[in-house]
Amino acid sequence: MTSRDGYQWTTETGLVQGVPCIGVISPPTNITSSLDRCDVIVIGAGYTGLTAVRDACLAGLKVLLIEARDRIGGRSWSSNIGGYPFEMGGTWVHWGQSHVWREISRYQMRDELEPSFDFSHGVNHFQLRTNHGSKTVSHREEDELLASALHKFVNVDGELGRKIMPFPHSAFHVPAVRQYDQMSAQDRLTEIAASLTPDERAVVESFILLCSCGTLETTSFFEFLHWWALCGYTYQGCLDYLISYKFKRGQSSFAINFFKEAVSTGNLLYTFNSPVQSIEDQSGKVSVTTRDGRSYAAARLISTIPLNVLSTIAFSPPLGPQRTAAINVGHVNQCVKVHAEVSSPEMRSWTGISYPFNKLTYAIGDGTTPAGNTHIVCFGGAANHIQPEEDLNKTKEAVQNMAPGNMDIKRLVFHNWSKDEFAKGAWFFSPPKLLSQGLDELRSRHGNVLFANSDWAVGWRSFIDGAIEEGTRAAKTVAEELRSPSTSRPHL
Amino acid sequence: MTSRDGYQWTTETGLVQGVPCIGVISPPTNITSSLDRCDVIVIGAGYTGLTAVRDACLAGLKVLLIEARDRIGGRSWSSNIGGYPFEMGGTWVHWGQSHVWREISRYQMRDELEPSFDFSHGVNHFQLRTNHGSKTVSHREEDELLASALHKFVNVDGELGRKIMPFPHSAFHVPAVRQYDQMSAQDRLTEIAASLTPDERAVVESFILLCSCGTLETTSFFEFLHWWALCGYTYQGCLDYLISYKFKRGQSSFAINFFKEAVSTGNLLYTFNSPVQSIEDQSGKVSVTTRDGRSYAAARLISTIPLNVLSTIAFSPPLGPQRTAAINVGHVNQCVKVHAEVSSPEMRSWTGISYPFNKLTYAIGDGTTPAGNTHIVCFGGAANHIQPEEDLNKTKEAVQNMAPGNMDIKRLVFHNWSKDEFAKGAWFFSPPKLLSQGLDELRSRHGNVLFANSDWAVGWRSFIDGAIEEGTRAAKTVAEELRSPSTSRPHL
Repeated sequence: MTSRDGYQWTTETGLVQGVPCIGVISPPTNITSSLDRCDVIVIGAGYTGLTAVRDACLAGLKVLLIEARDRIGGRSWSSNIGGYPFEMGGTWVHWGQSHVWREISRYQMRDELEPSFDFSHGVNHFQLRTNHGSKTVSHREEDELLASALHKFVNVDGELGRKIMPFPHSAFHVPAVRQYDQMSAQDRLTEIAASLTPDERAVVESFILLCSCGTLETTSFFEFLHWWALCGYTYQGCLDYLISYKFKRGQSSFAINFFKEAVSTGNLLYTFNSPVQSIEDQSGKVSVTTRDGRSYAAARLISTIPLNVLSTIAFSPPLGPQRTAAINVGHVNQCVKVHAEVSSPEMRSWTGISYPFNKLTYAIGDGTTPAGNTHIVCFGGAANHIQPEEDLNKTKEAVQNMAPGNMDIKRLVFHNWSKDEFAKGAWFFSPPKLLSQGLDELRSRHGNVLFANSDWAVGWRSFIDGAIEEGTRAAKTVAEELRSPSTSRPHL
Repeated sequence: MTSRDGYQWTTETGLVQGVPCIGVISPPTNITSSLDRCDVIVIGAGYTGLTAVRDACLAGLKVLLIEARDRIGGRSWSSNIGGYPFEMGGTWVHWGQSHVWREISRYQMRDELEPSFDFSHGVNHFQLRTNHGSKTVSHREEDELLASALHKFVNVDGELGRKIMPFPHSAFHVPAVRQYDQMSAQDRLTEIAASLTPDERAVVESFILLCSCGTLETTSFFEFLHWWALCGYTYQGCLDYLISYKFKRGQSSFAINFFKEAVSTGNLLYTFNSPVQSIEDQSGKVSVTTRDGRSYAAARLISTIPLNVLSTIAFSPPLGPQRTAAINVGHVNQCVKVHAEVSSPEMRSWTGISYPFNKLTYAIGDGTTPAGNTHIVCFGGAANHIQPEEDLNKTKEAVQNMAPGNMDIKRLVFHNWSKDEFAKGAWFFSPPKLLSQGLDELRSRHGNVLFANSDWAVGWRSFIDGAIEEGTRAAKTVAEELRSPSTSRPHL
């Protein structure tokens, strides 16, 4: 099946909108007559929604899933092109991420991961291009450079963050940590500027922007510390957790298991291609109206609509002032992720940073395609933003600038998350103050409407893991509230 | 409530069997009449059984839990003495352990952990006592000594194990790793003996034995590598994952949530104090007979009976030869874990190794009791075994030998796992060859009987995490097999 989402460019086809995806659901609905009972409506079929739907179905609730897109996965989905998966959004997972790994284990998919990095053959170097010049060094030197720079950046407590944030899943445990949510990454860089070499400055800025895809000014230093703590307070941990292990058959091969399990219970109704317009909570019942005028009602509603999209939904009664304020601030991640298939097999073991002059700033060899070409994944963001489908030549130029002379582009694949009306950005990354002021409110319910999204998870916020954390939380709450008296009588 | 399990000694009371525990279930059964239907019987109320019971109940199955003891928790339980929890068995958890952390997160218990170590006041040193002499050094020097020794021990591939075991949850991913299951820890030590200083030799042996609680000869080198890989291939990771974070209110405060949630579904019947004698799988039905002659039947049975106990149950049809062989080998962990409350508050920041001459070899300051004393937790094992309740004076002497002059003992608390007929040892640790020859068989089913236990988990085998992994697997299988046709029709 082909999704409407995503773009592909090759010399032969030119730019084409829509790419193949095993997560497209067809037919798009299984509703064949009017609904006689629905316990809970879940809006959104990303990992949060899929988890909530599956858990609620397993608990015996009648569930209706409403999704705007033609596919499952939300901001994490893969396109299989000629049997090779390109990850359009969220990609990497790790066994130290509890929620996602519990599911990988539960679906017996432990053996379906593979490393992105392969330094066994080819150029086997790191290419650093800055305004000051260009150099290639070994990956060992790359790691030392990044580790040295990051240690200076995060070391606010003499223990590389362990003292100020000892429990990464209770990030505000030490009250003094709140001061760092008042600071931007730029503020912290200013503090330590004198201690950084020019190369350290370039790579640490580039790495921060790889995480936030905002600007240095719009990146909360606290949230970066939170990522660092989650990654075990080491650069090796950042590599391991953030950018190393992906599904051999793509993210959608994982997501589909949640959907299939939910369907197998017989408790799931779903309707795709159904953007939501309004949500009304009245007289103990929640009603949802889609843009095409259909209405559905249930006892509870789980909204997994992302932070940056919530302002497009009409709520009645209206959302409170604190939540509205947080929604109006929004998150800052405008990631530009571009996959380039390049002809040189030697580039498999290449990594590079081109910063700050280039539209794409961080890239790695991510795989070898069926044609024997190298698959390079490149990242840019708000700091030097580009809309790839609007200026393909500039996009190709940005890829080529990463490694001049070695990027003979055969194919580009990407999803423009900034222009995606159901995402309005990529993974959550917080500007200063948003989390310390708004996190609790974003996590709270609004009558019979529960809000669940990785954007306000407490652990691996922004990650697939955080999405599953949130879906788990919402489904448990709803199942406990709706457990019928008849099923809670002992069966003797 | 007081459990029959465990021992406590104080000057005032002398030795008393049975200690207080919030995991004791009273009344011990909720069966009030004959059972009219039971979908699945679960034997054992450790974390594996609790997880299986809970998940099956949530899936709408009628579940009967049969437990030999008077309490939940199996090999992980805590005694609350004067409001202070002493961990009788499995203790430490970490957010990088996926199954256990998913549950901690799901039960909103993220803020209920505290560190065992506290180096903020007191002696703040590591005391190393060997046959060659005694010294005290800083904790930083302790870490450097252990890390140096462990690196030599595990570095079979020039990458500290990352190359030979790149996926800790698929430990046999690289076929060449199997050779290390043919080797004991002693075999590996012999290979590297020339490279170790006497202090390194003492601490690495002591650390290996802390993990296996067998002897160096009965400890599989492969299984140690597996632990090392799970811990992120670093000594810091070993500290973080193995011995750092515990529940403020004790393990039983966690386990009780699984039980309560299962009860709340109305689908759970349970009977404690009910050791099982035999299991018969005949004509599509599994029957269980308890020692007191009661019988129960169900469509499926999940046995969470530990490896070392399986030989005491009569199976009909009999278990296969491969599984029987593995059961007859058994695991080698005969941990002796003794809590000592000592009068000096200064000992809070103390750690020590006394090896090999002492009956207890590894100990740390683990807390401050309500009386202001220091709680020290000490470990011994098969290599120099002692039955604490049989020779209290020798046990006290072994505690005192850890730090002569600084162990004024006020209280001892322990569970003798070796003499516990429902455990016959502590956490699983493999001798050479058992895993490479028997793991797949141990994980396999036997007709309508499913075997689930941390002893044969694939990830954090031996840990609470592995128990939950196994309970999750078993419940999912049973729920899928027993999902009734009526619930799998769409509800329109």
